[in-house]
Amino acid sequence: MFMPVGTQATVKGVLQRDLEVELGIQILLANTYHLYLRPGHEAIRRLGGLHRFMNWPRAILTDSGGFQVFSLNSLRKVTDEGVLFRSHLNGDAHMFTPESVVDVQLAFGSDIIMALDECLEYPATHETARLSARRTVQWARAAWQHYTGLGETASSLFPIVQGSMFGDLRAECARQLVELGADGYAIGGLSVGEPRALSLEMVEATVPLLPRQRPKYVMGVGLPEELPEYVARGVDMMDCVMPSRNARNGCLFTSRGKVVIKQAKYRDDPSPVDEKCPCYTCRGYSRAYLRHLFLAGEMLFATLATIHNLHYYLDIMKDLRQSIVLGAFPDRLRVIRAAPGGED
Amino acid sequence: MFMPVGTQATVKGVLQRDLEVELGIQILLANTYHLYLRPGHEAIRRLGGLHRFMNWPRAILTDSGGFQVFSLNSLRKVTDEGVLFRSHLNGDAHMFTPESVVDVQLAFGSDIIMALDECLEYPATHETARLSARRTVQWARAAWQHYTGLGETASSLFPIVQGSMFGDLRAECARQLVELGADGYAIGGLSVGEPRALSLEMVEATVPLLPRQRPKYVMGVGLPEELPEYVARGVDMMDCVMPSRNARNGCLFTSRGKVVIKQAKYRDDPSPVDEKCPCYTCRGYSRAYLRHLFLAGEMLFATLATIHNLHYYLDIMKDLRQSIVLGAFPDRLRVIRAAPGGED
Repeated sequence: MFMPVGTQATVKGVLQRDLEVELGIQILLANTYHLYLRPGHEAIRRLGGLHRFMNWPRAILTDSGGFQVFSLNSLRKVTDEGVLFRSHLNGDAHMFTPESVVDVQLAFGSDIIMALDECLEYPATHETARLSARRTVQWARAAWQHYTGLGETASSLFPIVQGSMFGDLRAECARQLVELGADGYAIGGLSVGEPRALSLEMVEATVPLLPRQRPKYVMGVGLPEELPEYVARGVDMMDCVMPSRNARNGCLFTSRGKVVIKQAKYRDDPSPVDEKCPCYTCRGYSRAYLRHLFLAGEMLFATLATIHNLHYYLDIMKDLRQSIVLGAFPDRLRVIRAAPGGED
Repeated sequence: MFMPVGTQATVKGVLQRDLEVELGIQILLANTYHLYLRPGHEAIRRLGGLHRFMNWPRAILTDSGGFQVFSLNSLRKVTDEGVLFRSHLNGDAHMFTPESVVDVQLAFGSDIIMALDECLEYPATHETARLSARRTVQWARAAWQHYTGLGETASSLFPIVQGSMFGDLRAECARQLVELGADGYAIGGLSVGEPRALSLEMVEATVPLLPRQRPKYVMGVGLPEELPEYVARGVDMMDCVMPSRNARNGCLFTSRGKVVIKQAKYRDDPSPVDEKCPCYTCRGYSRAYLRHLFLAGEMLFATLATIHNLHYYLDIMKDLRQSIVLGAFPDRLRVIRAAPGGED
């Protein structure tokens, strides 16, 4: 499955009804860091939880906030207890601990909650990565202890494997986390600027050590052509801002490559973004109209483009799921790998 | 009827399907000036006309471009032949003539096209207004002659009554335009900063002189509480950016007055914008969520707020139409006028 990103309890520009009915999305990702700061997890709890707050009846996964604390905050202090950071909104000091981010996500009522992890910049030395992965394991144990101590909840907690770009550290981290017996496992700290071959190598070093029957989730990936490669390596879940962010920037994914909508060649183009696409956007709107909306700075462009790009991603995943169910995944992967990509 | 404004071939933030299915809108207004400059009327003609371009199967009225030329352009030159102006996009010089704006709107394939008119600032002297109304009549005659000379078209041309805030000039202008025998008539040059009593007075000076069987359209009005007043004076059609623009600015209309969504009192408010409203927004989303989206700068706020405000306007018109059909309009008007308004 691919999870569209709804950072602030909204997938930017798309109505929840269209996410549900038009796109058939089963699970969204929302960001703990952002929603903790605004409107606050206690406000969301008082309002009946995140599902009710954002009018989303299906599943929600919230990240741990770790990635945002480490990427949006230049001023932060990490200790064994947790991480002290300043709000990017107003500079207020806040502390995330393994226990507190479990509580925050339980206040949201998220279906899948993530354990606090430390995210390193790329590149990092082996020693830095080793200490960081060790801390992530300690935090995951603390989170797990806190979570299981609360008794039965409706949420599943996923620990996150770290270890930067070192296969031995990834493997060691995975082995230690597996001892927790969690409902699923994530692989974090990828898509941070490393070459794609290295991301895949880290996944290969990790996935075989994770429980075969439990979902395996690679965070923050990827490009459309990368999705089948992760699936081929045993990955079940992915999320990425790419389909929605690229949409807003005027870049549309198609079966024949990218369409950069501002290009003059689309000025009089009456055809849809992708002739083969059955999405709402492609059913009713031309490239010429989309280009007009984009150049005019109209919001509707983001809506139509995001609907298309999300449909494109979800369609890839649907195709892969079907081939797996039919026992035809290896053949399908060969066909996909042989297909020409590039600019339309 | 109330026509939502879709300046650049989109009602900002709302999908055409929601305008059609969710809101039941029968007719939209689009702006000749904007669409002439970008993407251009010839491009729209090549793409199959405005309905197809913007994926809107129902009626479209386009204004004459006159109002925008006079409000968006400080550099312009008016002659008997037309108006020379500079594009607000790139400074290029363009000329609108009574004939050319008919041609532009026929290229769009608009269902209702408007004759070029001169719009004055408020206040204007009687002499300035007299000369300007005379020019508007001359232009309307030229537009009419050009339009009828083209033979049968699928579009109706409406001339526009001007005359600033002088009842005698409005009446004279109306009498002269009625001689054309057009399918409908508009009253322009209102909502330009004058007191509301004066706008209504100008409508009262004009409507009785227009053909009873033909639609009468007051351009650019109004506030929710003004709509019944115009209808009471014989007005059939109105348009205004207010529901959509106010929505984007965080101001929502309700049966109990305005909701200014950024106010702190809505922070934990689980109720919909308007308890009595059956719109998509009020069916699924709380004031607290809308406030969160607004403060977070999320596009979805504009979408949800615009859907609500348009529904509110359209509902007022529906209520008025029903009371007219039932022969109960005078009673209904009394009830409406007695209802308390103000801030919720």
